[in-house]
Amino acid sequence: MPILGWGKTYSLPHFYQDMSAAVIVTIMLIPQSLAYALLAGLPPEIGLYASMMPLVAYMIFGTSNTLAVGPVAVISLMTASAIGKLTLTGEVDYLSAAVMLALLSGIMLLLLGIFRLGFLANFLSHPVISGFIIAAGLLIATSQFGHILGIAASGQTLPILLMSLFGGINDVNSVALIIGITSLIFLVYVRIGLKPLLEACGLSSGLAANISRAGPLLAVFMSISAVQFFSLGDKVAVVGSIPQGLPSFALPDLSLDMIEALWLPAFFISIIGFVESVSVGQTLAARKNERIDSNQELIGLGAANIAASVSGGYPVTGGFARSVVNFDAGAATPAAGGFTAVGIGIATLAFTPYLYFLPKAVLAATIIIAVLSLIDLSVLKNSWFYSKSDFFAIFGTIIVTLFMGVEFGVIFGVTASIALYLYQTSQPHIAEIGLVPETQHFRNILRHNVITSPLILSLRVDENLYFANAELIDKMIKERLEKSPDIRHVVLNCTSISLIDASALEVLENLNKFLMSRSIGLHFSELKGPVEDRLLKAKFLEHLSGQVFLHHYGAVSQLDPKTYMNPSVLAEADQSAHDGSHI
Amino acid sequence: MPILGWGKTYSLPHFYQDMSAAVIVTIMLIPQSLAYALLAGLPPEIGLYASMMPLVAYMIFGTSNTLAVGPVAVISLMTASAIGKLTLTGEVDYLSAAVMLALLSGIMLLLLGIFRLGFLANFLSHPVISGFIIAAGLLIATSQFGHILGIAASGQTLPILLMSLFGGINDVNSVALIIGITSLIFLVYVRIGLKPLLEACGLSSGLAANISRAGPLLAVFMSISAVQFFSLGDKVAVVGSIPQGLPSFALPDLSLDMIEALWLPAFFISIIGFVESVSVGQTLAARKNERIDSNQELIGLGAANIAASVSGGYPVTGGFARSVVNFDAGAATPAAGGFTAVGIGIATLAFTPYLYFLPKAVLAATIIIAVLSLIDLSVLKNSWFYSKSDFFAIFGTIIVTLFMGVEFGVIFGVTASIALYLYQTSQPHIAEIGLVPETQHFRNILRHNVITSPLILSLRVDENLYFANAELIDKMIKERLEKSPDIRHVVLNCTSISLIDASALEVLENLNKFLMSRSIGLHFSELKGPVEDRLLKAKFLEHLSGQVFLHHYGAVSQLDPKTYMNPSVLAEADQSAHDGSHI
Repeated sequence: MPILGWGKTYSLPHFYQDMSAAVIVTIMLIPQSLAYALLAGLPPEIGLYASMMPLVAYMIFGTSNTLAVGPVAVISLMTASAIGKLTLTGEVDYLSAAVMLALLSGIMLLLLGIFRLGFLANFLSHPVISGFIIAAGLLIATSQFGHILGIAASGQTLPILLMSLFGGINDVNSVALIIGITSLIFLVYVRIGLKPLLEACGLSSGLAANISRAGPLLAVFMSISAVQFFSLGDKVAVVGSIPQGLPSFALPDLSLDMIEALWLPAFFISIIGFVESVSVGQTLAARKNERIDSNQELIGLGAANIAASVSGGYPVTGGFARSVVNFDAGAATPAAGGFTAVGIGIATLAFTPYLYFLPKAVLAATIIIAVLSLIDLSVLKNSWFYSKSDFFAIFGTIIVTLFMGVEFGVIFGVTASIALYLYQTSQPHIAEIGLVPETQHFRNILRHNVITSPLILSLRVDENLYFANAELIDKMIKERLEKSPDIRHVVLNCTSISLIDASALEVLENLNKFLMSRSIGLHFSELKGPVEDRLLKAKFLEHLSGQVFLHHYGAVSQLDPKTYMNPSVLAEADQSAHDGSHI
Repeated sequence: MPILGWGKTYSLPHFYQDMSAAVIVTIMLIPQSLAYALLAGLPPEIGLYASMMPLVAYMIFGTSNTLAVGPVAVISLMTASAIGKLTLTGEVDYLSAAVMLALLSGIMLLLLGIFRLGFLANFLSHPVISGFIIAAGLLIATSQFGHILGIAASGQTLPILLMSLFGGINDVNSVALIIGITSLIFLVYVRIGLKPLLEACGLSSGLAANISRAGPLLAVFMSISAVQFFSLGDKVAVVGSIPQGLPSFALPDLSLDMIEALWLPAFFISIIGFVESVSVGQTLAARKNERIDSNQELIGLGAANIAASVSGGYPVTGGFARSVVNFDAGAATPAAGGFTAVGIGIATLAFTPYLYFLPKAVLAATIIIAVLSLIDLSVLKNSWFYSKSDFFAIFGTIIVTLFMGVEFGVIFGVTASIALYLYQTSQPHIAEIGLVPETQHFRNILRHNVITSPLILSLRVDENLYFANAELIDKMIKERLEKSPDIRHVVLNCTSISLIDASALEVLENLNKFLMSRSIGLHFSELKGPVEDRLLKAKFLEHLSGQVFLHHYGAVSQLDPKTYMNPSVLAEADQSAHDGSHI
């Protein structure tokens, strides 16, 4: 338990730092947790519940000093999507499905952590995750426009959301619209204009930033006052009564049907939540020269989700915006999360009655502003220039997520990343190489001015030899040999080969026989240790028609001394020719 | 059309060669096509139909001179499995499903060929295919034991087949058992003992081999005589009446339901059939120094399957045993296949009435003997020693195929091959390298006696940098740096890096910033051309804290001349230090 580590050296300065960070995060988290519960289609108090016990659990099991755990936008959207598909009858069932989702996700994360399977998250490529988050942000923003317009917009894909928005265009609630637009303008102003203004008024930069962060809470306060003052409570959708008090502990209903229906969405939520959380945690840890342990993080997030589940919450993870705030506000240890939980608890006990008249349009505005920062299209531009295949994976993920929903988006992203990688490695770059004059170094004959021999075909295959490319390499070598009948030696430079699988070994054995029947030697140079070990074990090198050379220069200077022993390289060649072959 | 190529130079010697090969293949194919139809659960004449028009179509579109196309064991099993799952009512529907399967498979193969997607077959690794064929062979042999015992054994997995065999153990038909066992012993003897005996009697080796190949036909002839002589026709299951005449042409019923149910099995049949056929074709072509074009082969096999479908047959492909016989018997051009088709046609017209009393037990015995040669367990042994991950992929494929059926077997095999490859590349070998004395060559410090510098960390990552391993590499570098605080330069030797994807680029950018903040230079050596091009385009190299060096020796000798400029290497170093960096 990481808490036993940092707990031992916990000091009063740590306490002050963590406390002040906790106050600021609490102020930020109250409107956010209400808003994300709304986004997930859950009663507002569920957002508050998900911001208490999970933070305590993460404080005990997590490794990041600054990660702030709780309900986040993308996971809330995925929760809404997963439960929406179940089309359950009443609100109780909808809620128990959310609780079950948190439990399943928590157990999965815990198991992944215990079995040290954190590396699985690596199979989601970064650009694909960015694409997914862009699309999720667009879906979230669109869905929240329903609240701004005061009409019920629902759906899990962009076309359905848009259709439901346009379908309700005649029912637009002008009060909701005015409150929503005002909130949007106010929140944008707070983000962009308030901090410089406060600084201009002489406040310190830190204080100005902290006051700006209270913007959403300020919007909440002002809108409640306005609704009460103008008696708008029955003219606009408001949050309504929130149960006053802390969540009670209970095990979720363990219905097998529900587990069967929810395990796959729970898995996606776990993976996306973990990837998001770890990338935030790593970014922040790197700034303080700290390190987080991804398998322990899985355990921390697993514990947080189980805690969310048994205290009536829904899936949580480490959020980007709030963690940055936590970091900037000086959080020194995970205890800051614990103090935040206490803050939310006090708020739940004391302030919930005052939230009755909070318009949903204000919460929707805070969500829209929060997710707009997720929609960073530069990843599309960068990948277009760097790698077309990455671009298409991202673009496809965005399109599939928007038009088919978040689950298909995740599936498409993973599949596309893997398929494109395999396709690229199945079409390897094969360079014919020659000696760079006055060195012992070999480079591509097409790119460099190099020395070659008419007797030797020196090839560098720029990829592992495995089932997806072995046949192709065999074919290319044979085609190349047909063009130059004088060649007596094929030397494969194996610098790029870290793996030769059984399929490729079979192909090499046949190639060796083929070359032998034509009195052409097959040689290897610069074989890596582990690869050579395995070829020796398979007894392939015993009946090789050629030799294995430690380095390529040794190979060619021994096989064709006339070409390679000219005066300019003679000095070194003299030695290499003798010790070049080490079998 | 390949026929226009070889057709132009067709000569009388070709004709004699093709004719004699066709006679021998026809003799072999008559009992085989009846037997495989039985295995597929189809009436015996369907096997004959599948051995006529498909051969003509392949003669026109195929590229192998010796491949013999027709019904084969594994594809017949897959056909039985695909149609068995439909649980259709009468035999007519069962038959039209088989015809539809051939049509779908033919269209898929044709499309794959037209769009030049033959490389997709590379994603089935060789050992996994071997595993699949071993398991299919075991399933086939087990299912045929039902006919030998004279009881109805059905099922698509080993446990169900065995249960149905043991369930019928009280109904064993002693006549079928005697005929079956006798046939098995006779066929084994023909395989092992007859050829040497004939040679001992003074026959030439070729003639002896050809007579041995007639063994199954001899078994057919003798068993029919025995059944007639002892009047056993009502005591044992016989083939019964076979329609006398050539197949009529018709388009299959294009029912959408059936297409929906059969497209996935048809896809598996296409892929397995193609892989089997191409590997046979390539093996035989290599012996005669010929080449086959895998995309044209797809077109040839596609045409063959469409021809099978419109002439009332079922899926076909190039078979191993018959192609070897065709090759040994001297087939010179694809015309041999056309002549075989004529031979089967004559047999269908003239001899089918005589097959009435042919016991099914005899056909089952020919199948069992034929598939026993498929069950080659050496692949398990070899892979155990060469590569544990290949071993587990094969073993898993065998188990899944035996216990869950052929479709799951194929899916498992492909998934396991890809997953294991990705897992291996996600855990790359990273070698710290040093200079081999008196050369310019760098090797692993753990395996070789090399020169290193306290200021420079020289690392060679033995894998592409991509999403699945980028984080891990970053972590390993940082951990290594913590151990040696003196290091001022990290030089990544990029000989093994053929690809840096966008995820890895992001990681490198962060690593560069991290190292810069610690005044450590990040350098690259021996970057491959295409990789460097892309890094330049992404403007990564512009803000790199270090340099890019053409070769590793140039890098270290410039970064730490004190260590690397000692007298033993001075001669070369002098030049390299100047031209080493090329940016």
